[in-house]
Amino acid sequence: MLCLLSLWLSASAVDLYGKAFIFPKETDTSYVLLSPDLPLSLQAFTLCMKVASVLPTNREIILFAYRTKDYDELNMWQEFNGTFSLYLSGPGVSFTLPALNTFGNHMCVTWESQSGLIAFWVNGKRSLRQVLRPGHRIQPEGTVILGQDPDSFLGSFEKAQSFVGEISNLYMWDHVLSPSVIERVYLDYSFPKGNIFDWQSLSYKCTGDVMVE
Amino acid sequence: MLCLLSLWLSASAVDLYGKAFIFPKETDTSYVLLSPDLPLSLQAFTLCMKVASVLPTNREIILFAYRTKDYDELNMWQEFNGTFSLYLSGPGVSFTLPALNTFGNHMCVTWESQSGLIAFWVNGKRSLRQVLRPGHRIQPEGTVILGQDPDSFLGSFEKAQSFVGEISNLYMWDHVLSPSVIERVYLDYSFPKGNIFDWQSLSYKCTGDVMVE
Amino acid sequence: MLCLLSLWLSASAVDLYGKAFIFPKETDTSYVLLSPDLPLSLQAFTLCMKVASVLPTNREIILFAYRTKDYDELNMWQEFNGTFSLYLSGPGVSFTLPALNTFGNHMCVTWESQSGLIAFWVNGKRSLRQVLRPGHRIQPEGTVILGQDPDSFLGSFEKAQSFVGEISNLYMWDHVLSPSVIERVYLDYSFPKGNIFDWQSLSYKCTGDVMVE
Repeated sequence: MLCLLSLWLSASAVDLYGKAFIFPKETDTSYVLLSPDLPLSLQAFTLCMKVASVLPTNREIILFAYRTKDYDELNMWQEFNGTFSLYLSGPGVSFTLPALNTFGNHMCVTWESQSGLIAFWVNGKRSLRQVLRPGHRIQPEGTVILGQDPDSFLGSFEKAQSFVGEISNLYMWDHVLSPSVIERVYLDYSFPKGNIFDWQSLSYKCTGDVMVE
Repeated sequence: MLCLLSLWLSASAVDLYGKAFIFPKETDTSYVLLSPDLPLSLQAFTLCMKVASVLPTNREIILFAYRTKDYDELNMWQEFNGTFSLYLSGPGVSFTLPALNTFGNHMCVTWESQSGLIAFWVNGKRSLRQVLRPGHRIQPEGTVILGQDPDSFLGSFEKAQSFVGEISNLYMWDHVLSPSVIERVYLDYSFPKGNIFDWQSLSYKCTGDVMVE
Repeated sequence: MLCLLSLWLSASAVDLYGKAFIFPKETDTSYVLLSPDLPLSLQAFTLCMKVASVLPTNREIILFAYRTKDYDELNMWQEFNGTFSLYLSGPGVSFTLPALNTFGNHMCVTWESQSGLIAFWVNGKRSLRQVLRPGHRIQPEGTVILGQDPDSFLGSFEKAQSFVGEISNLYMWDHVLSPSVIERVYLDYSFPKGNIFDWQSLSYKCTGDVMVE
């Protein structure tokens, strides 16, 4: 269905099991707004989603953007050079990972404030860990969007940074899941409900040319 | 935790199951000292560890260094050209193996003095075998360190040879394990305790910027 | 053990299960002579062996040579261009297959005279089939050797064609095995004894620098 139709569904949470957000082409107008079940006041998180894209790797690709009024609080990118990065209100770290592809990779990011340890997980396997902003707290009352990178609170999109492809199975927790649970999330088999975002009970709103199928 | 904290734990053995030594950046100061449960007077050995690194392959990388007062007794390297090598007090052999990566490869080396046969094992599979120092005996009373290559007994480190990444599941035996046991070590399922080093009961001391998580 | 020692064992058949012929370096002197249990008067065959090598692919590599007084009756090669080929007394066909590597590929060749159909099998999976010498019969009373290509009955070896690496699990039958049996040979699980060569009961003689371990 066209995502537009689901506008009306988005007042309450929707079970998207087996479906994906399809971003069929480069735009600076199409995006999905996600409404979290908890305020994003976070000292730890696990963010997972399945991402398929055949965009060239010599181009920035926004994968997840959480922006408060003044800051990009939590942004996940594929960079110009093909690495993947995560930024927390300014500082970021980048990771050498397998490229996005037409079949889709399952990707998670885990971070916790005390040590600052951050890792990507691709198809259930953990990357090398890095340290990012130990002691930091992610601030609430922002906006999560997929498909575009907002350079202001919810606007100033750039076509050349937009996402083209499919995003599905998006889950987010306010803590770090164990390796064995992350493997179960990847396998889509018996794992705890996402307490921030849960693909099987998601409140969202689409704008522009996005399909949900 | 910062490895520094474990300084105090290192008097007795520590169970590191599920953890890794994280070397977050290039230094000539960070390393881990390992205290063996048996003197390294060896006519055979099996050394296993899981290694993750995204260092470029046009650079030497020290993976394991055992040095007595005057000799590099048993050193394991990734070489400039991306091959892996093992040296026993001078002479060495190199092996063409899959590159290190962010998710980690499980690597073992087996050697026994009588035939001199030496092999690497990557994720449970044996490489081609070579012959190294038949009749040789590895000498005891040296120092095992991870992260740096000591050019003197415990010093003269070179940043450009240091290890950056994660090392975990380090085990060492004073004999050659069978192929089926090495596969079980790789699968982390029901294998004999390491009688020289055992990751689940390891005496170690960290120096510099090393984390244990 | 040095293969030399096994000279004395070679009068009777030896069980080589779990062992390999190791050719540690390029020579024009090292080879293994195999004594078949049946004369090689063949209108069909299945030849299987596990082969590990890291020789460069821009070099010929002899994998199996059966020569009668005047002819290369049945020779298996990796060619200059990395393809694999089989020759029957002159004519040959070549196949595009995965490269040899340090961990070893299980390779079989099947051929039968009536149709001339010939296929390679790598790790249990069949290649595209080709046609070679329909109606032909392989002649007996030659010599099978591993490690060298004899340009005369048993000599005129060329170092640059020699095999370096490991060969194991060599079996040969005087008929074409079914796909499911070839998979069991690959899996090393419950398959019929080789009636020409059988790795678990092999008569052989080593010359030069070959190890059996």
